[in-house]
Amino acid sequence: MPKALITTVPFGEKNRLPLEQLEAAGIDYVINPLGRKLKEDELAEMVSDFDVLIAGTELITARVMDSASQLKLISRVGIGLDGVDLLAAEARGITVSYTPDAPAPAVAELTIGLMLSLLRSVHVANAQIHRGEWHRHFGRRIPEVTIGIIGVGRIGGRVLRRLAAFGSPRILVNDIHPNQKVAPELKLEWVDKEEIYRHADVISLHLPLTGQTKNMIRREHLLQMKPDAMIINTSRGGIINEHDLAQVLGAGHLSGAAIDVFEQEPYTGPLGKVERCLLTSHMGSMSVDCRARMEIEATEEAVRFLTGKPLQGLVPPGEYDVQRQGL
Amino acid sequence: MPKALITTVPFGEKNRLPLEQLEAAGIDYVINPLGRKLKEDELAEMVSDFDVLIAGTELITARVMDSASQLKLISRVGIGLDGVDLLAAEARGITVSYTPDAPAPAVAELTIGLMLSLLRSVHVANAQIHRGEWHRHFGRRIPEVTIGIIGVGRIGGRVLRRLAAFGSPRILVNDIHPNQKVAPELKLEWVDKEEIYRHADVISLHLPLTGQTKNMIRREHLLQMKPDAMIINTSRGGIINEHDLAQVLGAGHLSGAAIDVFEQEPYTGPLGKVERCLLTSHMGSMSVDCRARMEIEATEEAVRFLTGKPLQGLVPPGEYDVQRQGL
Repeated sequence: MPKALITTVPFGEKNRLPLEQLEAAGIDYVINPLGRKLKEDELAEMVSDFDVLIAGTELITARVMDSASQLKLISRVGIGLDGVDLLAAEARGITVSYTPDAPAPAVAELTIGLMLSLLRSVHVANAQIHRGEWHRHFGRRIPEVTIGIIGVGRIGGRVLRRLAAFGSPRILVNDIHPNQKVAPELKLEWVDKEEIYRHADVISLHLPLTGQTKNMIRREHLLQMKPDAMIINTSRGGIINEHDLAQVLGAGHLSGAAIDVFEQEPYTGPLGKVERCLLTSHMGSMSVDCRARMEIEATEEAVRFLTGKPLQGLVPPGEYDVQRQGL
Repeated sequence: MPKALITTVPFGEKNRLPLEQLEAAGIDYVINPLGRKLKEDELAEMVSDFDVLIAGTELITARVMDSASQLKLISRVGIGLDGVDLLAAEARGITVSYTPDAPAPAVAELTIGLMLSLLRSVHVANAQIHRGEWHRHFGRRIPEVTIGIIGVGRIGGRVLRRLAAFGSPRILVNDIHPNQKVAPELKLEWVDKEEIYRHADVISLHLPLTGQTKNMIRREHLLQMKPDAMIINTSRGGIINEHDLAQVLGAGHLSGAAIDVFEQEPYTGPLGKVERCLLTSHMGSMSVDCRARMEIEATEEAVRFLTGKPLQGLVPPGEYDVQRQGL
């Protein structure tokens, strides 16, 4: 009987269908018993006799794979591949699949929610009233500000299309592969990142974590931003240097930040001391429908693999190139 | 030299234009020196020798008017007339104007922001991480839920049009004057309020405070709502019974609430003890642009009045009828 290790949690919680799919296909499964993101060591210890990994964002390194002599498929629940050493997998003949479209609507919607909270200081007023203080904060509306979107792919494009309903802000966009057709209803200005840092009032990141984006926004970039600019990261921890962000916010620069993703999760760092920093717990994809779709798609891929059917979510060669070139 | 008392604060803070307009017209003005919403007594003491009141949401009662022998115009910065005794003003020959359109875009945008925060538990995750706890909350996306809008006028209509960008939720609407043309891009179901209470996942109120809406949502209505329903009030305090809401939330019913307006402001009541209750400080209209537009429109009306020009924001007879009939 083939065996699957499900490392991402929660799994099958709001919708049992993926578990039923595994059961129907006669696949034995174990759900990560620690109930949180696994460390490399923990995964290496756990993984030894599984054929398939239904994986989250934990590190799946060469070392992990060397402890996994049966492993033939890594099926990622979600889109980011920064945790998976694709070249090590390739060298060992381990197939890697993912579900790149499923999380996008939920991440885009959370991003708009965070943007509206930042623009109106909702999180600050809420904290104040809950401790008995009352301040009426001035805010700005979306059509009053310049918005900068870095990364205009599946998620960035959806953020743009939702913004269009709020009027016509000035929108600056940047992507390594500009797609002029992304939101025809909006007048987008394609610019370089520095221009976004300098001119945007609200900056939102929708990028993968790669050699090129890791630590991309450091102190010097944050200081280029307007004193009352706001930055949102719902993509991957590590793209903004967290230490620099906490320092710059602590020194009074930037009027707010909304951070959903962290270098280390669970996050317990210094951003928690900054009231105007709105913090969420990697919840971008955590809508009931998108999470179910991700889990079901990753599970169906595992079932297809183990029953000899053609795969539908194979990670494309370009992603291997990104890691090969250390980009 | 005519004299204007500006009771609403802040005023002229982000945009000095209304103060300059008063100065250019040779109107002497005083801004509320207490820097907060005035009580009836305080206003009555302050108002004696002013010709014009540029007013906020404070109570402007017959008693206040009796202390204001010079008063000829009440120019409301904003839309709600619940604070103004229109019949007392009429009896004393005091004209009343308001700015009904200016706040609507800002209130609608805040409402969408609060809705997205509630749906994804952003406020709860933020409070938790700020005190060192990490929980990943499941949420729902707008197209997954049934939304109920009570009051489909200037603000409710704008909320609906912004919702359309997020996909196609089921939308239940209620208004005493149904307007079938309000959001042609959406399929709206016109229903009675009870149906919204029973079937909506998210309920948002966009109503004036009148005899008919005061205390409209009490314990029995809250208990009719789904156990995981959410309610948003960015319209007027007193429409939802705050005491009942706090009790019902305290007992575990409803998965969240977002309240921007209160019976008494500043608010210091028991909702501050409920973490899943998102609280803001009457900030619906507090975007820089809308607030400026409200202040400028109300000031221009005062200038028109004092320079003998025709008024543009006169409160229509229907509003007097509402108060006359105790509706």
